[in-house]
Amino acid sequence: MFTLAHRFREPPLSKRPSVTELEVHDIRFPTSEQLDGSDAMNPDPDYSAAYVVLRTDAGEGAAAAEGHGFVFTIGRGNDVTAAAIRSLRLHVVGRPAPLTAADLAALHRELTHDSQLRWLGPEKGVMHMAAGAVVNAAWDFAARQAGKPLWQFLAEMSPEELVELVDFRYLSDALTPEEALAILRAAEPGRAERAARLRERGYPAYTTSPGWLGYSDEKMIKLAQEAVADGFGQIKLKVGAELDEDLRRMRLAREAVGPDVRIAVDANQRWDVAEAVRWMSALAPYDPHWIEEPTSPDDILAHAAIRAGQPVKVATGEHVANRVVFKQLLQAEAVDFVQIDAARVAGVNENLTILLLAAKYGLPVCPHAGGVGLCELVQHLAMFDYVAVSGSWEDRVIEYVDHLHEHFADPVVVESGRYRAPTAPGFSARMYPESIAAYRYPDGPEWRTRLARPGTAPSAPAQPVPAPSAPAQPQEDHQ
Amino acid sequence: MFTLAHRFREPPLSKRPSVTELEVHDIRFPTSEQLDGSDAMNPDPDYSAAYVVLRTDAGEGAAAAEGHGFVFTIGRGNDVTAAAIRSLRLHVVGRPAPLTAADLAALHRELTHDSQLRWLGPEKGVMHMAAGAVVNAAWDFAARQAGKPLWQFLAEMSPEELVELVDFRYLSDALTPEEALAILRAAEPGRAERAARLRERGYPAYTTSPGWLGYSDEKMIKLAQEAVADGFGQIKLKVGAELDEDLRRMRLAREAVGPDVRIAVDANQRWDVAEAVRWMSALAPYDPHWIEEPTSPDDILAHAAIRAGQPVKVATGEHVANRVVFKQLLQAEAVDFVQIDAARVAGVNENLTILLLAAKYGLPVCPHAGGVGLCELVQHLAMFDYVAVSGSWEDRVIEYVDHLHEHFADPVVVESGRYRAPTAPGFSARMYPESIAAYRYPDGPEWRTRLARPGTAPSAPAQPVPAPSAPAQPQEDHQ
Repeated sequence: MFTLAHRFREPPLSKRPSVTELEVHDIRFPTSEQLDGSDAMNPDPDYSAAYVVLRTDAGEGAAAAEGHGFVFTIGRGNDVTAAAIRSLRLHVVGRPAPLTAADLAALHRELTHDSQLRWLGPEKGVMHMAAGAVVNAAWDFAARQAGKPLWQFLAEMSPEELVELVDFRYLSDALTPEEALAILRAAEPGRAERAARLRERGYPAYTTSPGWLGYSDEKMIKLAQEAVADGFGQIKLKVGAELDEDLRRMRLAREAVGPDVRIAVDANQRWDVAEAVRWMSALAPYDPHWIEEPTSPDDILAHAAIRAGQPVKVATGEHVANRVVFKQLLQAEAVDFVQIDAARVAGVNENLTILLLAAKYGLPVCPHAGGVGLCELVQHLAMFDYVAVSGSWEDRVIEYVDHLHEHFADPVVVESGRYRAPTAPGFSARMYPESIAAYRYPDGPEWRTRLARPGTAPSAPAQPVPAPSAPAQPQEDHQ
Repeated sequence: MFTLAHRFREPPLSKRPSVTELEVHDIRFPTSEQLDGSDAMNPDPDYSAAYVVLRTDAGEGAAAAEGHGFVFTIGRGNDVTAAAIRSLRLHVVGRPAPLTAADLAALHRELTHDSQLRWLGPEKGVMHMAAGAVVNAAWDFAARQAGKPLWQFLAEMSPEELVELVDFRYLSDALTPEEALAILRAAEPGRAERAARLRERGYPAYTTSPGWLGYSDEKMIKLAQEAVADGFGQIKLKVGAELDEDLRRMRLAREAVGPDVRIAVDANQRWDVAEAVRWMSALAPYDPHWIEEPTSPDDILAHAAIRAGQPVKVATGEHVANRVVFKQLLQAEAVDFVQIDAARVAGVNENLTILLLAAKYGLPVCPHAGGVGLCELVQHLAMFDYVAVSGSWEDRVIEYVDHLHEHFADPVVVESGRYRAPTAPGFSARMYPESIAAYRYPDGPEWRTRLARPGTAPSAPAQPVPAPSAPAQPQEDHQ
């Protein structure tokens, strides 16, 4: 007997590069000025990235010698996330640079199992997202060293290597290593054919660009019609602030795109169970494709009740903290669509785990994207899923939002409603140095000028999340 | 009609103090040197506090002019938590100092509903604990201004004021404001009598001091016998590393304390479902009072399966992220004991919410304590529960660990196995300035000397959490 780790490809030790630095940047874009990204819970986001560059001695100054990753946030607190990434330095700097599945499995475990840092989650929130950024930067580096786009780098690993990447702790009541191996082996024979089809046709996308709450009806209708003309078969609207408004906007959108284009709606965690059931029962005549984030991302039982209580299919995941919560959403039959996010959980390894869980339960994965660089990252995971895990793109779509791509060196290419398969080596995570310099908070030139004006978003008093629209407190008659 | 907020006591506006500063300290105690606090998941904790002082202009230099609070951590990452507390400064400094239930309700909502900071949880992990520290500091200040210990300050509020303190978002499928009001009104008539009994007799405690995994059998037996001699009716042992070890230690402990003393056991999230069921079935003949944290704190369905699958009662909560997860543990009948923690959720307000949820479902609350100052804080919440919420101390005990109390200005007093009701004004949260100065990391004298030696805990490579003891990866025969 020998463990699978012995079968991993290892480069000769003499050539092994080391990690020399973990560089962290607080980058923020003043998106609140245009209301891009506005929804029922997030009225004024400044899309931001706690951005990490993993530097190595694998070739002086060469692009392949670095790995890039980031946590996406919406403004205030991006500095806290940056501090969390810095706290992981001791696990990375001065160590051998990760190149193989075994290296990337070990790094993921070390970052998520540090017993002192784990106390700050465990496996959730700022510290977990920070681990994810470093894990993803390591994958970016390893894929660049291999000279392959990440989706292909992953899809060419053996089922045994992929299983080694998964942390099965807390999963055995839903998914065992043997079951994961069986899923991956079943998909192995078709890999080459699907990779060819993916390169030829691209992966299906949908667009959220028309649907932000802050947009006027005219802007929404115009963008929805443009989306259909551009070849998208699905769009998404934000809902949840006012039911009458949502009914009007949903009607206008349905009239604009016709009966055959799917319209998903997204409440961004706005409701309790009864309110979600009431609201979606009212919107159901306009045939919403799914209701996304109807309630708290922690509330497995509420999602199950909402799914059972009204006719619209349920999607969630962009704020689901980790694989344990995803596991329960599947066990409780609480969702119809699994929405992974590339920068919320602990990186590629945990997302591979969630892809395997979804495959076990037979549910489609429709990744969350948008924000800063989330489209760039998550396309690789969906394409890998198609080639080597689920083997299907039926009922699957990657979210697409058309902003901030200009800051990335390898931006997504979406044509005729489909993501083209990336060909550049790595995880498409690299932001241009000029963008990093310009939007560093608070010292980049884009912020220095804004912060000199009074009332600028991140330092101004916060906009609280809107209160529940149903009265939350008992009222008394004055007698 | 008028809303309840109009009935709150408001001081004359002319005398209203303001918050002048939010001061944050990174305080760490080198507890890993003695293996105090060692368990199956946390082999080498350095008990720490991200400590906050809320300063006001309510009297120059007077103790009552400040509020103190903290997040408890176990070492690395305490600086990340301190950064998270600092990010809340804009919600507090320069604002009126909170004095009334209405003020404290508004502050709690503002801190937890900041739409940009909420993205970092939502309502979990570093950012949520940071909000809790500031909320608790505000309560410490308000209780000091009122000249009352926190438990009494809370227990003298009207049911209407207490309901106003609760954020009911995501709770309406389990607890409505009307139900909360009914619970509090039902307990109102007995308040004075129970407060008198509490002052006379104290609140029941149990002790974890004998049970740390790093202790020798001899030390464990000696401490267990001393605990019984000191009047404790319950002790707790850490388990989960090796079943044979646990069987031996459990047998020795049972022999040492006899059949009538309760022995709880605590696995600190070590197991998956099947392993927990197997392990606790094996320990059951020694009559464990409860199994605490058998698995991931996020795993509601696994707790329910473990509770159903073996005979020992289930307790959890110290790592439960928020009220939404507690709600589901109750809805799913996943636990027998609800273990609140004073510094994990968003402060007094969210813990009041959890007390009300437990009362609604008829389950006893047995607070987690230990760490740095957790005994000091949580005693107030349990005593308030007894006086004004559940109205009972039947089957209820507060954890007690006998270390680090010497750093607190109003340390807990535990006599004959019971916590004496605090009489000093405030939340007992105040650490001596000398302790803060000595243990500040990394610049306090206690750390400067240690960090000058090589290999000191917080800067040394981390000890990863032990891997699951069952083989997690498939093995193959070498053919």
